[in-house]
Amino acid sequence: MRQRTQDRALRERASKALPNGVYGHESTALLPDTYPQFFKRAEGAYLWDADDNKYLDFMCAYGPNLLGYGDKRVDEAATAQLALGNAMTGPPPLMIDLAEAFIDMISHADWAMFCKNGTDATTMARTIARAETGKRVILVAEGAYHGAAPWCTPVRAGTLPEDRAFIQTCTYNDVASLEAAVAEAGDDLAGIFAAPFKHDAFIDQALPDPAYAKRARELCDETGAMLIVDDIRAGFRLTRDCSWELVGVRPDLSTWGKCFANGHPISAVLGSERCREGAGAIYATGSFWFAGVPMAAALETLRIIRETDYLEHQIALGEHLRAGLETVAEAEGVSLRQTGPAQMPQILFEDDQDFRKGFAWTSAMLDHGVYMHPWHNMFICAAMTEADIDMTVEAARVCFAQVQADAEKLEPHPVVSAMFGARAAE
Amino acid sequence: MRQRTQDRALRERASKALPNGVYGHESTALLPDTYPQFFKRAEGAYLWDADDNKYLDFMCAYGPNLLGYGDKRVDEAATAQLALGNAMTGPPPLMIDLAEAFIDMISHADWAMFCKNGTDATTMARTIARAETGKRVILVAEGAYHGAAPWCTPVRAGTLPEDRAFIQTCTYNDVASLEAAVAEAGDDLAGIFAAPFKHDAFIDQALPDPAYAKRARELCDETGAMLIVDDIRAGFRLTRDCSWELVGVRPDLSTWGKCFANGHPISAVLGSERCREGAGAIYATGSFWFAGVPMAAALETLRIIRETDYLEHQIALGEHLRAGLETVAEAEGVSLRQTGPAQMPQILFEDDQDFRKGFAWTSAMLDHGVYMHPWHNMFICAAMTEADIDMTVEAARVCFAQVQADAEKLEPHPVVSAMFGARAAE
Repeated sequence: MRQRTQDRALRERASKALPNGVYGHESTALLPDTYPQFFKRAEGAYLWDADDNKYLDFMCAYGPNLLGYGDKRVDEAATAQLALGNAMTGPPPLMIDLAEAFIDMISHADWAMFCKNGTDATTMARTIARAETGKRVILVAEGAYHGAAPWCTPVRAGTLPEDRAFIQTCTYNDVASLEAAVAEAGDDLAGIFAAPFKHDAFIDQALPDPAYAKRARELCDETGAMLIVDDIRAGFRLTRDCSWELVGVRPDLSTWGKCFANGHPISAVLGSERCREGAGAIYATGSFWFAGVPMAAALETLRIIRETDYLEHQIALGEHLRAGLETVAEAEGVSLRQTGPAQMPQILFEDDQDFRKGFAWTSAMLDHGVYMHPWHNMFICAAMTEADIDMTVEAARVCFAQVQADAEKLEPHPVVSAMFGARAAE
Repeated sequence: MRQRTQDRALRERASKALPNGVYGHESTALLPDTYPQFFKRAEGAYLWDADDNKYLDFMCAYGPNLLGYGDKRVDEAATAQLALGNAMTGPPPLMIDLAEAFIDMISHADWAMFCKNGTDATTMARTIARAETGKRVILVAEGAYHGAAPWCTPVRAGTLPEDRAFIQTCTYNDVASLEAAVAEAGDDLAGIFAAPFKHDAFIDQALPDPAYAKRARELCDETGAMLIVDDIRAGFRLTRDCSWELVGVRPDLSTWGKCFANGHPISAVLGSERCREGAGAIYATGSFWFAGVPMAAALETLRIIRETDYLEHQIALGEHLRAGLETVAEAEGVSLRQTGPAQMPQILFEDDQDFRKGFAWTSAMLDHGVYMHPWHNMFICAAMTEADIDMTVEAARVCFAQVQADAEKLEPHPVVSAMFGARAAE
């Protein structure tokens, strides 16, 4: 196992200086104990942890790293804008350049609003839908992640039932369930949220059923509700437009974040004329929302998205990875479930309810310098190469063999097994 | 009047590319039409608008500019970290350095959590208070601004009454009103929010009555509720500790944002042992919360806050400005109301219910290259000089005379006069 001295010392300090160690989605609390928590450096497709161990990184900062860490083109645009001005008393002219460039790329969009967090964008979309329609019910798919605000956070501590008032659920890709939920909302339906594909944690991913997407559009047209595609995680990783263009459905609102400034902090809501008035009526703002640096980074990232084959490259690498893993898994007698778009892979093991095999395998992969995730979808970045994928597949082969050899002595993760205890006991 | 061609052209484009022109707190919709909306550049205490007009800026980006725009020390720390890594798959070690440095400076704090928006921090503080106490009522002062989320936004469009469930109000600095509100909450009080001083828009500012602050502390101790000081706007502008140290009161939670990274995007919640468990139980996160660049900027800004006389300089300049304005206003027969801490001045005119005098004066000041605000508190930054203040006072003298000469023909601002029509008619 790799050296972890610095990481352990930092975790010890973090357990005091932060309320419960590292919080949020980048906490390693639900990962094997072998995972590094802190990173000193990132470049291209690689990360270095606090102990200088190097990893090929399949998490891409949980999404923001689209083109490669420290992409020179993007960071030079950011640095040039920093010399001019970042947060000022009003936005820079390039805010309008950025809005126009973004709208030009996204078929359904007639206007844009910029913010910081993905949660800002989803909360604004919810508020816009209610302001535009004067109605209250917001429909989300059961288990979908739309952010960490009290109305949508997956953890209920400190939240009230009232925070989720009029948030109703249906089952993703289940038309009958969607229709029933819409019927139940009666004349009070404000909006339907949809992830571009089902990318929930801990389970197999699912591409959108076009019939489900089309029915959501029809139901919004019939009721006057707003259709909202939450493209924060998948935006620009499936296509250069809103992701549901792939199934021929155009929403009224889409939410963006993560990668459109290649890691610089900015998110967005894009909308059509159908909800311009509602968007113009709400009040949403933040101290840093009008800052120029992330806007300059975003403008350059959008140019690269338009002008390069970053996407085709990512898809090709994703497919190469998927096929390679399938081959070596089969050779080692391992049954994998690889789901979701190839460039956003979810890799789970068959018969692994408490994730002990997945944990053992990803933990072994770390020792081979590959950072993968045992229960969250991953990301391919444009800085990865075919050689990186080949190295990954070869490491995977060795680690599959190791998991098979150790199968009898694998222990479940204490926290995760508590979460999934019921499932494991079935 | 200064050239506005570029600004007008940008506004025209903004009216299409954004839903209703520029949104949020940096919109000029409630300012005289002479105000520039867009800024190309900022340096030290100065701003340049889209038409290259230069202004001494008393808004400091509505707070973030503490040390001067583009402070070399801070921006070099940021740029150095950008070369290492910004958003990565885990936080950088310096997250812990920053948390420890911050906690060391703030007397009440035992732990820190970092986020992006001020609203993130206030919403997390609210959630922590509820998680820690298992109770629901959050007390805020009537008219206080604690962010733009649905539970606290000053504009109700698109929000529901349920978003504000168990948010109760009292009157700032009114002990009897505070006691009555606490009594009404019964055994369901989770927390009391307090601005460090009353810095509401459109009205005179008020320093905290120590009796009010002390009573809030006592009531929290008696009921088990959390006392939360919202230091987002005033933090490090009154003292190098939590602002209520000045009145001898230590909260359980404090919220920070705006200026502690001198304009780089980061905010924070700081807390005591009393609510560590609640803070560790909630889920709050964002795509960019663990990014290194704003953390490096914050670490350097905190060092400068500790090691330089930035604060004493700002206070001295603020007092110089206040005295100078008082003298020239009196000489020109103008009655001013200058309230709040001198380094965060609010400047209103007597007998100016619809703000027409204030609008005329600040509009005239723009033509003299001074950007002031007619109804929002302003900020002094450390890059300002005594010569800047002398220039401002001399410009103010000329502009006071102009307002007096034009008094009979001043017109009210259409939007603001609609907002304050009732008051003006009294």
